[in-house]
Amino acid sequence: MSPQRLYIGLDVGGTSMKAGVVDDNGHAHSGISLPTEPHKGQQHGLDTMCAAIRQAAAEAGLTMADIVAVGVATPGTMDLKTGYILDPPNLKPWRDVPVRDYVRSQLHLPTAFQNDANAAAMGEYWAGAGRGYHSLVFFTLGTGIGGGIILNGAVLEGEHSHGGELGHVKIEMTNPRLCGCGKVGCLEAYASATQVVKRAREAMASHKSLLHDWPLTDGELSAKDVFDAADKGDALAEQIVDETAYYLALGASNVMHTIDPDAIVFGGGMIAAGEPFLERIRRHIPRVAFPVPAARTQIRFATLGSDAGFIGAAACARALVVK
Amino acid sequence: MSPQRLYIGLDVGGTSMKAGVVDDNGHAHSGISLPTEPHKGQQHGLDTMCAAIRQAAAEAGLTMADIVAVGVATPGTMDLKTGYILDPPNLKPWRDVPVRDYVRSQLHLPTAFQNDANAAAMGEYWAGAGRGYHSLVFFTLGTGIGGGIILNGAVLEGEHSHGGELGHVKIEMTNPRLCGCGKVGCLEAYASATQVVKRAREAMASHKSLLHDWPLTDGELSAKDVFDAADKGDALAEQIVDETAYYLALGASNVMHTIDPDAIVFGGGMIAAGEPFLERIRRHIPRVAFPVPAARTQIRFATLGSDAGFIGAAACARALVVK
Repeated sequence: MSPQRLYIGLDVGGTSMKAGVVDDNGHAHSGISLPTEPHKGQQHGLDTMCAAIRQAAAEAGLTMADIVAVGVATPGTMDLKTGYILDPPNLKPWRDVPVRDYVRSQLHLPTAFQNDANAAAMGEYWAGAGRGYHSLVFFTLGTGIGGGIILNGAVLEGEHSHGGELGHVKIEMTNPRLCGCGKVGCLEAYASATQVVKRAREAMASHKSLLHDWPLTDGELSAKDVFDAADKGDALAEQIVDETAYYLALGASNVMHTIDPDAIVFGGGMIAAGEPFLERIRRHIPRVAFPVPAARTQIRFATLGSDAGFIGAAACARALVVK
Repeated sequence: MSPQRLYIGLDVGGTSMKAGVVDDNGHAHSGISLPTEPHKGQQHGLDTMCAAIRQAAAEAGLTMADIVAVGVATPGTMDLKTGYILDPPNLKPWRDVPVRDYVRSQLHLPTAFQNDANAAAMGEYWAGAGRGYHSLVFFTLGTGIGGGIILNGAVLEGEHSHGGELGHVKIEMTNPRLCGCGKVGCLEAYASATQVVKRAREAMASHKSLLHDWPLTDGELSAKDVFDAADKGDALAEQIVDETAYYLALGASNVMHTIDPDAIVFGGGMIAAGEPFLERIRRHIPRVAFPVPAARTQIRFATLGSDAGFIGAAACARALVVK
């Protein structure tokens, strides 16, 4: 048996970036984190990316000569074909940053570039909740809702780098909520952690709830507080949680009737709500989806947590050298 | 240059089935039609399929020995992997019909089996409005709304034969219309020809319109009447038409944010409404879709008419023998 090839994946976020060495089985051999500090400018950001990759190798007791390819995942907007970040809301004031070419020129290794949610989808597919499935759709539930689609073992990037923008599938026309993207009626405008809080506040304005006297986890109301209050039997919180599950079931149903994947995986901070929330999503699906996909599509929570991005970025690196 | 290979595609509908010989360039050399007569039972249906295929060869002055593969497209429900029609609403009382194996056993040729809307998508991709594009999403606007997705040159079938069921993507929660599928809020419940008529009738109950005294084309109100009245400046009809365009723009936007294809093609009877209707759809898209796909995705009407199905079925046949 030949020795395992090793890759480094890097997942760049608005606050910090995480990098790790990953082997051919999707197993992480290291995991380090550096602050992104986007306000220090994009050259600083690019240098930090290279530093994080080198540090991940060092932490695993390796040199860059042991690494066969690297993968970098970032938030959008982006052009996946050219490897540029374009105008990223979460990395201001960066603009038109040639991530892939810069990293490749510094590290002299095959370099993959991917959207962060797509990379997390790839990570879960390769080494997490989606392992063993043929195709997968991933929703990441955080401040916003990201998405990623894995078909035939690869990310569905789309022709204009907009594949899997599943937070912005429209689910409502009559009385649509405003989304962070500026449009209305998007799934994200209903079911992100931010919107769970917003919807709870709106309901609290006219209804009593334990949340009015809740010991707030973070000083102000969070999605976790709403889920905790629901667990304690608070009717208002329970309704918000159940509606959120219904919205996510609609999102899942819409990809069942479009992609029809083996598995739909939910990740991101909100899955800390645990198995009862997953069960709520599952219960709503037969109401909205056709019987066959409703019965057969696997609905799962992600298992890699915040490592999914760098592991998935490493999977994209691997795809450059393993055919 | 070697002589062209020839295929036969067959498109089975609830009323009639259409078959034709198609060459490697997607050019049809014949096109014949036979009544489906589903009430005569599935054995009769299977025999008619084989007869239609043989007749298509004869009409082109060929024998079956000149044909390298055949493709059969039918309405669902179906299992694409096993080649069965399961419980087709439009082919009652057929049930669990082994279409692919039967046709193959009778004709002794490689035999492809595909959903009719998927086949039409493939036809338009190969030889119609989608020619030259890398990926395509197709909506067929008739009694219902069918869909088909072409990625990497092949139909996205999905894991459970439900890929591209785009008429059943949900676009409304608050006040959702009942869909023919039994669920609510589906695109089809808003924008099919049947629903255009239904929505016009509902509006006519409380508003004046030229449609109250319209010389009906088919004895009762049809989608064509509504489109014609809109062309004549009738305010009610114009609103119905414009709302229909908006619903289709939502459907298009949802696939832009999922698949992000090169081209979105609308086909089916309703596109007889012509270029002004296409322009209305295009105008609504920037309201609902992200700027990049809204600006770059090509929005087109189908060009193959009712031949798209058999030409696409032939494309699926060709895919069995040309790698």
